[in-house]
Order: sequence, then structure tokens, then C-alpha cells
Amino acid sequence: MSVQDWFTNNKDIEGVLLDISGVLYNSDSSGGKAIPGSVQSVKRLKESKFKVRFCTNESQHIRAHLVTRLQKLGFSIEVNEIFSPAPAACQLLQDRGLTPHFLVDDNILPEFAVFNQPTNKPKDCVVIGDAIDKFTYRSLNDAFRVLIKSPQPQLISLGIGKYYKEADDLLLDVGPFTKALEYAASCTAEVVGKPSPTFFQSALKDMGVHPSKAIMVGDDIVNDIGGAQKCGMRGIQVKTGKFRPSDENHPEVTANCYVDNLAEAVDHLLSTTS
Amino acid sequence: MSVQDWFTNNKDIEGVLLDISGVLYNSDSSGGKAIPGSVQSVKRLKESKFKVRFCTNESQHIRAHLVTRLQKLGFSIEVNEIFSPAPAACQLLQDRGLTPHFLVDDNILPEFAVFNQPTNKPKDCVVIGDAIDKFTYRSLNDAFRVLIKSPQPQLISLGIGKYYKEADDLLLDVGPFTKALEYAASCTAEVVGKPSPTFFQSALKDMGVHPSKAIMVGDDIVNDIGGAQKCGMRGIQVKTGKFRPSDENHPEVTANCYVDNLAEAVDHLLSTTS
Repeated sequence: MSVQDWFTNNKDIEGVLLDISGVLYNSDSSGGKAIPGSVQSVKRLKESKFKVRFCTNESQHIRAHLVTRLQKLGFSIEVNEIFSPAPAACQLLQDRGLTPHFLVDDNILPEFAVFNQPTNKPKDCVVIGDAIDKFTYRSLNDAFRVLIKSPQPQLISLGIGKYYKEADDLLLDVGPFTKALEYAASCTAEVVGKPSPTFFQSALKDMGVHPSKAIMVGDDIVNDIGGAQKCGMRGIQVKTGKFRPSDENHPEVTANCYVDNLAEAVDHLLSTTS
Repeated sequence: MSVQDWFTNNKDIEGVLLDISGVLYNSDSSGGKAIPGSVQSVKRLKESKFKVRFCTNESQHIRAHLVTRLQKLGFSIEVNEIFSPAPAACQLLQDRGLTPHFLVDDNILPEFAVFNQPTNKPKDCVVIGDAIDKFTYRSLNDAFRVLIKSPQPQLISLGIGKYYKEADDLLLDVGPFTKALEYAASCTAEVVGKPSPTFFQSALKDMGVHPSKAIMVGDDIVNDIGGAQKCGMRGIQVKTGKFRPSDENHPEVTANCYVDNLAEAVDHLLSTTS
């Protein structure tokens, strides 16, 4: 089925969730580059009848930093439109009265400011995010020891991605390090962020759209597309970011539709429903 | 069944494989301490009718270094009595004509001296060992990129242990890092060392004893005991090293016999068969 036919057959869409990295822009050490057409597409989408939210597994930087970076690239996006794992994890920790040990990048710590108070309570869980250079033998041992001391180890992972692309390099994401700790401490992590259904649901609830009336646009076949589908949404994979041709023959996940980039998806969405 | 009864019922033993760390000695940063009774037990065993070999997943140091350390503690052990993963992996790499990328401790590199020659051939596999502080975000990314570039990633792991004890600390072993790379590159590692049957078999073959006539004495319920049993041997777990009381109720592996330490096993072995 052509992309145009797919959108013609799917006119009931009311809400759009957008991944950020690999869909809106490609990150690099100097702030990243907007993907051609994406700035204009986000603008057109936000001016249309569609509800729009941004779902990212970004766990290196706080949302305010991400917004600043995106605004510099020309995007018009506000902090409260972004759903990311750290605030969701922070709420979960508070709801359960946990005393967390953090293995995360320093830049994301402000999202957990409520845990800055000194406490005498022993750490009873580990929160792991994309800690980049903070992933060392020492820091992984420290996190492991918190887990192994507990009869029921609690490991909370900010996403479970395998790797991501930065400039021309592939870099390990948080997922492999989560798997390392799971194996060492014989436990299963609770994943906050994509592909967790709870995470997508919080964004859908915020825009008041039922999953059956929403699409997710992302570059990650498993976490974006597979996660959205498990949640009852339709998933559209862009051929930008970390898309690889083999994704179209993925053994477990088939996207509802594949598009060259966000601009193609938005063009069809707006033209078939106007 | 009492320990004595077990040995009385198992008089057909001809060969003994001994784990080293946690059975002969407990390692620490200053060379380690012999476990009480172990020096004398090894001596008595080697002077008896039993064939004896040492099976270790030590992948931080070359065998010669390990022998020196053990001799300082009073043990009489030679390099050619020790079976460790690095020489086995080196043979495997040569047999298959592979060009390896190494993520191992510098101390173990002499076991792979044959690969020291400069080559223009691109790396086509990764060998991972207990690299300790060499496990960094950068080194793990380097190894990952070798794997992800290959249509059929080959990851060779020197053991798959979860953690080990050094002085009073638990430290991550190679296994968690192998799991991290397996997840990132969507591949399954080939494990050289315990619990691989090939590894036990090479030691059994060297002493000319059939698995059904041999016992393995170790402190690791999965890699020593479970591995030996899968290979057709009987497995005796010592309550020294990283033994934990929960090992006696392990969901997957039950040792044939549990003893307080190596000395108890050797006492019974020698008294019931003399």
C-alpha cells in the first residue's frame, strides 16, 4: 500500500505523538542539526486540528535543556509538551516512598531534585539512565551492590534502548547497562519511558486522545513502533535517525506505515484530512 | 544423606577437578589468603591415586602469574595443570582464522601473544574477559562497533560469571558486560571457560578420565556445579568463597554433595577409598 493510500484509509486520527531524536533532529556534540522539513512540519501540525505531544527517552538532559536546544534549531516546543522518563520515574519513586541510588548523567539530576535532601535511610533501589561516561566499572559495581543487598532488588530504567546515533557514531544507550545489572543481580528492571505502555498512556491522557485514535511517529522500530502498537496506537516509522533498511523486515515488529521523514507523514496527514 | 555416606556411595571416582578462587584461596588486592586446610588438601590429593587438574575462569592474569601467587601461599601447582579460558579462546581464534578485537585486562594479553603482529585485516570478532577498570563507556562502545558492523557478530566470552568476591567486596565479573554487548548487538556470546562442556572436557581429556568417573569441586553453584553436571560429572559445592546459603535451594542446580570446605571433601575422599 502506498503512503498516500495508507493515510487515506486512516482518516480517524486525532492525536500525534512524535519522537524527538532522529525524527525532529539528529544530535551531535555541537547541539545537533534539524532534519530537513521537520521544523516546518511541527509548526504545521501544531497549527492544525491535531493534538500533538513529544515522547522521548532522552535521559541525558533535563527537558528545559532539550527545549532550548530545539528552539535554537527553529522548533517551537514547550517543556510541558514533552514526555520523558525522568519526571515519570521521579513520580514513581515518590509514590512508592523509595530511597534511590542514581546511576544517571549529572545533567539529568535536577529532574530528581526532590531527592537532594540528605537522608540516613539506606538506598533501596537503583535508577539507571543514559549515564554516558559515568558508566564505569566502579559506578556499575556501586549500583550492583545496592541491588544485591536487597532480597527483592528494584532496578528502574529510564528507557531500554540498545544504541543511538550521534553524528556518524553509534553509541550504547542505557539498555545494555540495564541488562548487565539485571544479569548480575538476577532481577528484572522496571522500564520507565518507551516502550512502557504507562508512559505512552500518560502522554495520550494529557492530550485527551484514545490510543485507537492516535499515531506514534518514531525512528526506533522496537521502542517507538512496537511500544505504540502494544499500547493500541498505530506506529509510523521514519527512515531518518537510526532507521536501518533491515527494520522493514524486523522479526517482531512491522510498522503500520513507513515514510521517508516526518515531512512526508505530515504532508499526507494534513492533505488527506483537510 | 551425610557427607560421609555420600562419599561411601561414590567410590568410583578417579579424577578431581578443582576450582581455584574460593576453593583454594580467597583473592584480595594483596595476593589473597589460603582457605584453611586447602594447601594440605591439594598436597594430599596430588600424592594420592587420584588424577587432579585445576579449572578456573580466571581471566585477569596469565596462568604463570596465578601459579606464582598460589606458590607464595604454599600451594604446589604447575602451569600445565591449570585450565583457564584464555588459552582455550586463543586456540579457537587460531582454528577459525579470526582477527580479534580484545576487551580484556592488559595482564592477560600475553596469553594471546600470537595476535600481536600488526595486521590490515579488519577485526571480525570480539573477545571479552574480566577487564576490570578497562570496562569503560568508550571501551564498550569500541567493542560494540566491531560487533554491529558484522552481519553475524561473533562475541567470545572468557566465562560468564555474574560476580566474585574480593576481600569483603562483591565485584562484577565478565558476565554482565557480555550480556550488555549481547543485548546491544543482538547476538549470543560463545562462552569459553566454565560452564562450557568443551572446557571441562579438555581438562578431563588431559587427565584421561571419563566424566562419569570425575568430580568437580567449586564454590559457584551455576558455573562449577551446574556446568560439571551438564558435562556428566558429579559436582560438589564448598561453603567457602562466594557460596551463599541460598545456593542450597537454587532453582535450577542442586549439587550432588555440599561440604564445608575443600579439606572436608578431601578427607572423605581419601578415607573412603583408601
